[in-house]
Amino acid sequence: MKKTVKEIAELINGEVVGDKNIVITGISGIKEAKEGDITFLANPKYAPLMETTKASCIIAPKDVEPKGKATLIKADNPDLGFAKVVSLLSPLGPVPVKGISSLASISKNAKLGKNVSVGPFAVVEDDAEIGDNTIIYAGAYIGNNAKIGKSTILYPHVSIREKCVIGDSVIMHSGVVIGSDGFGFATVAGVHHKIPQIGIVIVEDNVEIGANVTIDRARFGKTVIGKGTKIDNLVQIAHNVVIGENSIIVAQAGISGSTTIGKNVIMAGQSGIVGHVEIGDNTIIAAQSGISKSLDKNIFVIGSPARPQNIWKRINASMGHLPELLKTVSKLSKKVKVLEEKVYGKTEDNKERS
Amino acid sequence: MKKTVKEIAELINGEVVGDKNIVITGISGIKEAKEGDITFLANPKYAPLMETTKASCIIAPKDVEPKGKATLIKADNPDLGFAKVVSLLSPLGPVPVKGISSLASISKNAKLGKNVSVGPFAVVEDDAEIGDNTIIYAGAYIGNNAKIGKSTILYPHVSIREKCVIGDSVIMHSGVVIGSDGFGFATVAGVHHKIPQIGIVIVEDNVEIGANVTIDRARFGKTVIGKGTKIDNLVQIAHNVVIGENSIIVAQAGISGSTTIGKNVIMAGQSGIVGHVEIGDNTIIAAQSGISKSLDKNIFVIGSPARPQNIWKRINASMGHLPELLKTVSKLSKKVKVLEEKVYGKTEDNKERS
Amino acid sequence: MKKTVKEIAELINGEVVGDKNIVITGISGIKEAKEGDITFLANPKYAPLMETTKASCIIAPKDVEPKGKATLIKADNPDLGFAKVVSLLSPLGPVPVKGISSLASISKNAKLGKNVSVGPFAVVEDDAEIGDNTIIYAGAYIGNNAKIGKSTILYPHVSIREKCVIGDSVIMHSGVVIGSDGFGFATVAGVHHKIPQIGIVIVEDNVEIGANVTIDRARFGKTVIGKGTKIDNLVQIAHNVVIGENSIIVAQAGISGSTTIGKNVIMAGQSGIVGHVEIGDNTIIAAQSGISKSLDKNIFVIGSPARPQNIWKRINASMGHLPELLKTVSKLSKKVKVLEEKVYGKTEDNKERS
Repeated sequence: MKKTVKEIAELINGEVVGDKNIVITGISGIKEAKEGDITFLANPKYAPLMETTKASCIIAPKDVEPKGKATLIKADNPDLGFAKVVSLLSPLGPVPVKGISSLASISKNAKLGKNVSVGPFAVVEDDAEIGDNTIIYAGAYIGNNAKIGKSTILYPHVSIREKCVIGDSVIMHSGVVIGSDGFGFATVAGVHHKIPQIGIVIVEDNVEIGANVTIDRARFGKTVIGKGTKIDNLVQIAHNVVIGENSIIVAQAGISGSTTIGKNVIMAGQSGIVGHVEIGDNTIIAAQSGISKSLDKNIFVIGSPARPQNIWKRINASMGHLPELLKTVSKLSKKVKVLEEKVYGKTEDNKERS
Repeated sequence: MKKTVKEIAELINGEVVGDKNIVITGISGIKEAKEGDITFLANPKYAPLMETTKASCIIAPKDVEPKGKATLIKADNPDLGFAKVVSLLSPLGPVPVKGISSLASISKNAKLGKNVSVGPFAVVEDDAEIGDNTIIYAGAYIGNNAKIGKSTILYPHVSIREKCVIGDSVIMHSGVVIGSDGFGFATVAGVHHKIPQIGIVIVEDNVEIGANVTIDRARFGKTVIGKGTKIDNLVQIAHNVVIGENSIIVAQAGISGSTTIGKNVIMAGQSGIVGHVEIGDNTIIAAQSGISKSLDKNIFVIGSPARPQNIWKRINASMGHLPELLKTVSKLSKKVKVLEEKVYGKTEDNKERS
Repeated sequence: MKKTVKEIAELINGEVVGDKNIVITGISGIKEAKEGDITFLANPKYAPLMETTKASCIIAPKDVEPKGKATLIKADNPDLGFAKVVSLLSPLGPVPVKGISSLASISKNAKLGKNVSVGPFAVVEDDAEIGDNTIIYAGAYIGNNAKIGKSTILYPHVSIREKCVIGDSVIMHSGVVIGSDGFGFATVAGVHHKIPQIGIVIVEDNVEIGANVTIDRARFGKTVIGKGTKIDNLVQIAHNVVIGENSIIVAQAGISGSTTIGKNVIMAGQSGIVGHVEIGDNTIIAAQSGISKSLDKNIFVIGSPARPQNIWKRINASMGHLPELLKTVSKLSKKVKVLEEKVYGKTEDNKERS
C-alpha cells in the first residue's frame, strides 16, 4: 500500500520538513531502511543516524534539528505516530483465524457473539461466553462459565480457567494461564493441606498479557488486572493481587498474594513484591528490585531490599570504596593507638578513655 | 448448600462462642462477607475486622479475644478449618471433565483405570498408564510409557514426557512441563554437543505443581519431587534435583542440576540455588536469595550471596550508613594527620610510624 | 545392545586401562552403576567414587590416576565420549511420532519435506514450510508462512508464530513460544498504545531451546538466536535481541530489547541484561547478576549491578566486616576527639581545624 508523506503527516497530525510528495512504499528501522521506506526517531541518542539512513522519510520529535536528506515529519510522539503508520501501511501481523473451525470443541451451551473466530483444537466449555469479533487461536482453552469480551485475541495454548472474566480488546499471547489455583495451604504438623481457591480472575479492557504469564485465581473474591495495564512475558501474579489501570509489568517480575498496585506503576524486569502490601500510583520499581514494604506514590526505588533511587545510588557508589575503606580504618586505628601512647604515655590510660 | 454453625463446628472440631443455630449460606473473605456468610481470621493483624465484618460466623484462632457481633468458631488451625468448610459448602471449583472425550487421542496400548476422565484433544501415547479417578484436561499430553497415579488432576496443556512417573493425588496446573531434557552439553572447541538425557522425573503423591513450571528429566537416574511438596508457578527444577517431602518452592525460584533439598524446606520467590549442593531440612531461603553453597538444617538465610538472617540484617542496616561512614573516615584521616603533625612535628616522621 | 570396552574405546578414540574384553550392557551414573554398566567421571572431585562404584568401565579424563577395579577408558573429553556412548547403547529417548497423524490440522498450502512427522492436534497453517525429517509433536502450532528446517524437533505445545524462521537440527522443548509480540507501547497521557510488532524471529541451526522459553518477534527486522546457542528453561528474550553463535543462556535469565550478545557468552541462571547494550564474546555473567551497561569481551562479571569478579569478591568479603567497621570508626572518632582536646586544649579550636 502506497501513501505520500503528505497523507501520512495528516494521519498523525505532523509537520513536514522537506518534500511532501514523496511516495512511501515500506516501513523499517532507521538502520535497515532503504529508499521508499518511512522510519522513525524516538531516542535522541540515535540522531546521528538521520544522516546515514537510506529512508525517504523520518518521523521525529518536534524539537529535533533536521539532518541528512530524508524528509521529516515532526510529531508530538514519534512512537505513537509510527504505530499509526504501521497499522496503515503494513499487512496485518497475524492473519486472523476465520470463522469457527470444524476441528474446535465448542459446548452447545456456550454463547458466541458475532464474527467470532475459533481455531482448530480450541476448546470452549459449558456456559462460556465469547464476545463479538473475538479471535481464539488453535489449542486455546476456555473453561466453564468463563466470559471473554469483544475484539479480544487469545493466541495458541492460552488457558482461561472456569468462571474467569476477560474484557474487551484484550490480547493474550501463547501459553498464558489465567485462573490457576492460588498457592495457599494450611500447614499442620509439617503437612500442607490445600486451601480451596474458589475466587476468579478479572482482566479488564485493553490489557495485554505476554507469553507464558501466570495469573492465579483468588482464594475467594478476585484477582484483578486493571484496564490498560500491559504485562510482559513470564510474569507471575499471585492470588488476590489487584493491579490498577495503565500499569506496566516487565518480563519475569513477580507479585505475591493480596498485594495491591496502583495506577501507572512500572515494575521493571525480574523485580518482585511480597504479599499484602500496597504500591502507590506512578511509582517505579527498578529491575531485579525486591519490595518488602508498602511504597508511596510517585517514587523510584531500586535494590533488594529496595531503597529510594538517590539513596541507593550513594550506597552503591560507596560500596566500590568499601575494601579501601577497611584498609584506611585499619591504618587509622594504628596511628591513633601510636598517638595515644605518645600523648598519654601508657596503654592502661588509653583503655579508660576509650 | 446450607449448614448450621453447630454442624460446621463439629466438622472442624471447633468451639462455638455465640449462637450455634445460625444457618450459613455462603463463604467469603472477612472484608467482602455479607449476612449468612462464614469467614475466617488467620492473621491476628486483621482482628479489628472482626468488628466491621458483616459475616455471620468467623473461624478464628483459639486465643483470639471475641469482638463484634459474629458468632465465633475457635479452631486450632483456622486456615485448615476454613479449607474443610469450603470443601463442604462450595460447589467444586473445577467441573471435572466427565469420561473419555471422543476427541481425545488415546493409544490402544495405553492402560486406563476406572472412572478416568480425558478431555478433548488430550493425547495419551503408547503404553502410558493412568490410575483410577484421574482427570486429564483438554490438550494435555502423556508421553510413551509415562505412568500417572490415581485421583490426579492434570489441567489443560500439561506435558508429561515419556517414561516419567506421577503419583496419586497430584495436581498439575496448566502449562506444566515434566521431563524436558536436562540442560547438559559437552563443549569441544567452543561448540556444545548435546549429552543425551535418558533419565526420568518422579513426582510423588500429594504434590501440587503451579502453572508453567518446568522440571527436567535426569541425565540418567531420576529427578525427584518428594511426597507432599508444593511448587508455585514458573519454578525451574533442573536435571537430577531431588526434593524431600513437604517442601515449599515459591514462584519463579530455580534449582540447578543435581542439588538435593531436604524436607520442609521453604524457598521463597525468585530465589536460586546452584548445582551440586545440599540444603538441610527445615531451612528457609528468603525471596531473591542466591545460594552458592550447601546449607545446614534449620537455618534462615537471605541475600545474594545468602548469609544467615541475623548477619544479613546487620549488614543491610550498616549499608544505609555507608555513605556517611566514608565521609566520617575522610574527616578522621585529616584530623589524625593534623594531630600527628602537631604531636610529632614532622611529616617524614609520621610516615615511618604508620 | 551389547558392546565390548574395546569397541567403545574405538568409538570415542580413547585409551583402555584394564580389561578390553568386558561386555558392557548398560549405562548409569557413577553412584548408581551396577556390574556390566559403563559410567563416566567428568569432575575430578568425584574421583574417590572410582573406588566404590560397581560399574565395569569408567570413561575418565586422560590425566586421572587409575583407582578401583573398573576398567578405564581415558578420553580427551569424557562428557562428550559418554554422550556418544549413550547415543550408541541407549534406546532413543523420545520415541518419534511416526508420519502425519490423521488428527493433525495441516493447511493444503503448507509444504512438508520428506519423512516429516506431525503428531495429533498439531496445527500447520497456510504457506508454512517444514523440512525433511522434522518431528512436530502433538499440539504444536506452526503459524502462517513460518519456515522450519530439517531434522528439527518441536515438542508438544510449542508455538511458532507467523513468518518466523527456524533452522536445521533445532530442538524446542514443550511450551516454547517463538514470535510473540515484542513489548512496545507509545504512552500518551498515561495511556499505553500498542506499537505493532511486524518483525520476525530467526532461530539458526543447532540451537536448543528449553521448556516454556519465550522469544519475542522484532518490532521490525528480526530477533536472532545464533547457530549452536543453547537456551535453558523459562528464559525471556525480548524483541530485536541478537545472540551470537554458541552462547549459553541458563534458566530464568532475561534479555531486554535490542541488546546484542556475542559468541560463546555465558549468562548464568536468573541473570538479566537491560536493553540496547552489547555483550562481548566469551564474557561470563554470573547467576542473578544485573547488567546495565555494555560489557567487553572475555570478562567475568557478578552482582546486581554487576562488577568484575575480582572487584565484586573484595566488596562482598568487605561487606561481612561492615557492621564491625561502623563500631570501630565510632570508637576511633571518640578517641580522636579526646586526643584533640588533650593536644589542642579547647573544643572551639578543634572545630576550626577539622
